[in-house]
Amino acid sequence: MAALRCNVAAVAPVAGVARAVAGAERAVGVATPSAALGRFMGLKRVSNVRAAPAPVARVAQKSAAVVTKAVAVETLEKTDTALVEKSINTIRFLAIDAVEKANSGHPGLPMGCAPMGHILYDEVMKYNPKNPYWFNRDRFVLSAGHGCMLQYALLHLAGYDACRMEDLQQFRQWGSKTPGHPENFETPGVEVTTGPLGQGIANAVGLALAEAHLAARFNKPDAKIVDHYTYCILGDGCNMEGISNEAASLAGHWGLGKLIAFYDDNHISIDGDTEIAFTESVDARFEALGWHCIWVKNGNTDYDSIRAAIEEAKSVTDKPTMIKVTTTIGFGSPNKANSYAVHGAALGTKEVDATRQNLGWEHPPFHVPEEVSAHWSKHLTDGPALEASWEESLAAYEQKYPEEAAEFKQLISQKLPTGWEKALPTFTAESPADATRNLSQTVLNAMARVLPGLIGGSADLASSNMTLMKMFGDFQKATPGERNLRFGVREHAMGAIVNGICLHGSGLIPYCATFFIFTDYLRAAMRISALSEAGAIYVMTHDSIGLGEDGPTHQPIEHLASFRAMPNILMFRPADGNETAGAYKIAVERRKTPSVLALSRQKLPHLAGSSIENVAKGAYVVSDNSSSNKPDLIIMASGSEVEIGMKAADMIRAEGKTVRVLSFVSWELFEEQSAEYKESVLPAAVTARVSVEAGATFGWERYTGSKGRQVGIDRFGASAPINILYKEFGLTAENVVAKAKEVM
Amino acid sequence: MAALRCNVAAVAPVAGVARAVAGAERAVGVATPSAALGRFMGLKRVSNVRAAPAPVARVAQKSAAVVTKAVAVETLEKTDTALVEKSINTIRFLAIDAVEKANSGHPGLPMGCAPMGHILYDEVMKYNPKNPYWFNRDRFVLSAGHGCMLQYALLHLAGYDACRMEDLQQFRQWGSKTPGHPENFETPGVEVTTGPLGQGIANAVGLALAEAHLAARFNKPDAKIVDHYTYCILGDGCNMEGISNEAASLAGHWGLGKLIAFYDDNHISIDGDTEIAFTESVDARFEALGWHCIWVKNGNTDYDSIRAAIEEAKSVTDKPTMIKVTTTIGFGSPNKANSYAVHGAALGTKEVDATRQNLGWEHPPFHVPEEVSAHWSKHLTDGPALEASWEESLAAYEQKYPEEAAEFKQLISQKLPTGWEKALPTFTAESPADATRNLSQTVLNAMARVLPGLIGGSADLASSNMTLMKMFGDFQKATPGERNLRFGVREHAMGAIVNGICLHGSGLIPYCATFFIFTDYLRAAMRISALSEAGAIYVMTHDSIGLGEDGPTHQPIEHLASFRAMPNILMFRPADGNETAGAYKIAVERRKTPSVLALSRQKLPHLAGSSIENVAKGAYVVSDNSSSNKPDLIIMASGSEVEIGMKAADMIRAEGKTVRVLSFVSWELFEEQSAEYKESVLPAAVTARVSVEAGATFGWERYTGSKGRQVGIDRFGASAPINILYKEFGLTAENVVAKAKEVM
Repeated sequence: MAALRCNVAAVAPVAGVARAVAGAERAVGVATPSAALGRFMGLKRVSNVRAAPAPVARVAQKSAAVVTKAVAVETLEKTDTALVEKSINTIRFLAIDAVEKANSGHPGLPMGCAPMGHILYDEVMKYNPKNPYWFNRDRFVLSAGHGCMLQYALLHLAGYDACRMEDLQQFRQWGSKTPGHPENFETPGVEVTTGPLGQGIANAVGLALAEAHLAARFNKPDAKIVDHYTYCILGDGCNMEGISNEAASLAGHWGLGKLIAFYDDNHISIDGDTEIAFTESVDARFEALGWHCIWVKNGNTDYDSIRAAIEEAKSVTDKPTMIKVTTTIGFGSPNKANSYAVHGAALGTKEVDATRQNLGWEHPPFHVPEEVSAHWSKHLTDGPALEASWEESLAAYEQKYPEEAAEFKQLISQKLPTGWEKALPTFTAESPADATRNLSQTVLNAMARVLPGLIGGSADLASSNMTLMKMFGDFQKATPGERNLRFGVREHAMGAIVNGICLHGSGLIPYCATFFIFTDYLRAAMRISALSEAGAIYVMTHDSIGLGEDGPTHQPIEHLASFRAMPNILMFRPADGNETAGAYKIAVERRKTPSVLALSRQKLPHLAGSSIENVAKGAYVVSDNSSSNKPDLIIMASGSEVEIGMKAADMIRAEGKTVRVLSFVSWELFEEQSAEYKESVLPAAVTARVSVEAGATFGWERYTGSKGRQVGIDRFGASAPINILYKEFGLTAENVVAKAKEVM
Repeated sequence: MAALRCNVAAVAPVAGVARAVAGAERAVGVATPSAALGRFMGLKRVSNVRAAPAPVARVAQKSAAVVTKAVAVETLEKTDTALVEKSINTIRFLAIDAVEKANSGHPGLPMGCAPMGHILYDEVMKYNPKNPYWFNRDRFVLSAGHGCMLQYALLHLAGYDACRMEDLQQFRQWGSKTPGHPENFETPGVEVTTGPLGQGIANAVGLALAEAHLAARFNKPDAKIVDHYTYCILGDGCNMEGISNEAASLAGHWGLGKLIAFYDDNHISIDGDTEIAFTESVDARFEALGWHCIWVKNGNTDYDSIRAAIEEAKSVTDKPTMIKVTTTIGFGSPNKANSYAVHGAALGTKEVDATRQNLGWEHPPFHVPEEVSAHWSKHLTDGPALEASWEESLAAYEQKYPEEAAEFKQLISQKLPTGWEKALPTFTAESPADATRNLSQTVLNAMARVLPGLIGGSADLASSNMTLMKMFGDFQKATPGERNLRFGVREHAMGAIVNGICLHGSGLIPYCATFFIFTDYLRAAMRISALSEAGAIYVMTHDSIGLGEDGPTHQPIEHLASFRAMPNILMFRPADGNETAGAYKIAVERRKTPSVLALSRQKLPHLAGSSIENVAKGAYVVSDNSSSNKPDLIIMASGSEVEIGMKAADMIRAEGKTVRVLSFVSWELFEEQSAEYKESVLPAAVTARVSVEAGATFGWERYTGSKGRQVGIDRFGASAPINILYKEFGLTAENVVAKAKEVM
């Protein structure tokens, strides 16, 4: 076995030793330079030194009693190395040519990672190109998303409809299926949306978690209906990001043995050699995080070591594996390989020609040699056969385990159980006042009984966020079938892991939680929820200065506005129990839109006018003493300030005026309403309007209009008991009345 | 020496071994339980086992030729262990009593970390309580900021004015100097603002970087005028956060030998035992990151090991040191120690009594025994003596090195050199069109020549963000006097490091850079810039869909709005060269307010009406064909869309109308203007208004008014060439004209 296990003793304690070894390896063993080839060794020069045909053909899971019957497996012939090299160069040139045509993109990674890409998609992974959404497929995540032409080329060779030749030729163009970074919502076959570095590896942890969880819940000793690997390629950039360390720490803790990550160790990032900013020992760090680590010293041409490393990774079932694959970025380009110049720009005609010559590639742009396409065409039959075999297994499973099969099929249909919403609790104005974070826990626990896909937890604040599902235990290495997730203080990875769980596409409905202020830590992941249509539920408590003494580091101010400004995310700020239940109802129903629930730490009264149904309108009348649609004043509020608005309304009514109070539980949902509905609650003729909300006033002009007033907080908070803070910041009925009188 | 170096061989490769050892240690060696004391061993039980007086008294730097003359050092007597214990218990009970009085706060950490706190503030650190801002003081950062009563108690004992007894008694109350988390802007003696976990350790890296940089620039073989350590206490929570890994990786890379971090290894986080989510080997990870690691197995009572660890840490000058100090959270509380119950809530009267009894503390609340205050009173004379000695050294330095001394004194005065702004470049409408990111580089390089404090860099995007100062090299381990920082792909740590550099208070003016979209990765640090009055400059390029093909993962939409909603941060979107220079002028001048510059990737023309001075107004007229203050239409735009607004204006003027165009370069600055100025550019009588900006329209209603229109993008972007995108998203003069006609 050529793969070298890097144990800690070999690389620690001096950081940089591993790097030095790798450097020496590149200089001596891998990329002995010649004057003609510059710093890199093209395949041409080793094409005579052909390795023996790889013993590792594509195999189905030995341990999967049912699936190992897969008829497709036996039909896979062994592939000779010349053909493998031709396939790898096809991938490289599809990437080169597409970037060249777009005059934009990142050729370096596809050129360096083509070997591992080929081995994964041609020899290792099981998938069905005719049904990119087949449940039991292996998942692949390109965490280094800028290298997306690698994946598009692979999807093309494998026969995915989204990546036909004309799609590759439309790389990075308006309306194409091949955008500048992988986007699951544009390209069937792409699992998640990557590009922002470090997100993908954390998504992969979520995908692997989903598999481990469902396998524990549904597999039987004689039937593994849930059984796939999650593969990921990440680069130096991903490994520098904090989110990847958070995610890797959790993956190690959870022992996600079917997560196999390839670290594209090419020593180059945009600013140049990683020596200038990244000299830690990545392998030693991953070992410290509980991963199994393997080092493939020559990822450019030593295909057998890549194969052997994957085999070894699969044999380690209690830990995730990180395979460090040392590669040359832009492999094949005589003048740009191993430099940042090849990372993120087209090679240019001259260098493309030089690379063609260097790699002996005498084909026109976008050419796939016939033997290569003939070889890959097997996946068009193998894939459907794999799926059919799995369907057969599922049918057998259904015979033996009808109850489990019913739940499993319900889940993976991604449809909600009929009538689930009847389990949502309702409240009356007489129900005892409570914090919406507590009401949220009541709702979560009610939903947990009827939604088999509900899974989630908090970033070390379960007892503050009130997110535990009491009937379930913790998802842990020994208990992966449980549903309470313990993320530790790792908000950013939490968000990205939850995205992975969503986009596993198996009907799991994940929620996650922290203080609302700490959305700042996971905002990048939340934005990708919104962009990638992952219907995650963000349970964000301690939603204002109302949290009191912890002070301004913990008090959200601009956060409501910052999410209201973000596309495709629902920002809820419920005022009581019914609104909390109503917010969850919509959050669960909208599987392609994430939801954020901002919940109070402090107790709030239940409103007489609230209901689950009203939440769907976004804003609605909770109190009104006007008879026509023309009150003297409209007060708008959300969450904990609805109570203040109601008090202010009563004070003004006592002076003989008519006042309407609106609860603005979700601006996005209000914007979805008809013009008629909007006019019915917020008539244009009434310009005397005041908003009150314990947050930035930014944006409220949309509803108060130019003549209205906004009561809010446009400075940072402070450390003091809640009642003092509300008074000092003017969040009082008296202040609302005073502002109202300015405009009435 | 009792401190045990944890080498990797001892703890790797099985994650959890170190934890198991620590657990065994706690159970056997440290905290042998007795029925009476529950799970913890109070000091009472070991008070007879008194260690020999510590040989490590407070010493000045041996290597500091000038400073070692410090008269104060000789006067420090050795302290006997009984007094140390009494001091430590004083700290514990000040924390307990303050939390109890506030009925809010976090007693657990102060109780566990009191020993290391005492040793640091009484025996190790040099500071002057009479001048918390003395330049050459050691810096201390409580990254686990929730434990702030530890620091307040220490500042009280040390004699800082901000933490008098009445301040401690006002813990967490409105207007007090002792807020719920450490806030540098409230409490002199607190260096940075912490609480959001992981920020503090990254701030500490920035503080240590500032020291290393200034030491390299100003120290001479015979005179070390810059010479202090940076100490930090961080907990399990900080160590789980990705930002801390990013920062630690950089600290290791940079070899910041005078950074000494104490990891409060108490095995408890809010959700319970860290076993549920945090089982990695933290020490092995830090070793992989290039740190020197030391393990103090018994941080509760083994004071000599803490002292020895600090000595050892100081002896390692080429690496930062992480001292893992295994402690018992809530040490002394018989029923709550070693549990999450003691983390974040008052102990309650009964448990406070039990803790008093358990630790033999027969004093009333808020009591400082006379011998303890007598002992600590030395700092009131030692501190001024240390500063006076340093001033003397500085005077001697000034004699020998007048030029360097002048620059140094200019820097630490934190005043800008007179007339620096004359170096800012200006442009005319005839200057060649250019991207504002390029113009930004021109300005940065011009400023670098006249601002000795300018230091900064990018998160691996220097050649895209255009942030290199061409006359300087890279700040690296071997070249710490250089001023280009290479952060790697570590945005979050970058922001927090920059905060540390700002709050070092030595006149350094740090900037940092990434793509505007990736503010999502460092938003938590940017918010702390704003809150903690750190005048960092955020150079954020690729500021809209104008970046083109990289697509929606890279295209900011809601980001302008999200910063406009944040308090105390200036959001600039300059339209050309003069506006870029003007934005930098203000960013540099406002040392207590961070600035964000959103800069274009694409070329923009220079405007005839722009100037550095106009930027200060926030919004101003760039083009107008009306004679009175009543144009038929006002078009508002920012950055790259000003050009579009100008074109639209010309098209409408061609139809005989009067149109005014405003460049809205900074909303915050516009809000600072007088009502008269606002009316002069945006007259209330003109309601025909259109805004155009390549971002969310959210918030623009403030200026367009109820009757106006907003042209913008309220969905995610797409991957395509820039011209296509602008057309498809309606960011065209034609569309602005169409919207204008709806309201004219």
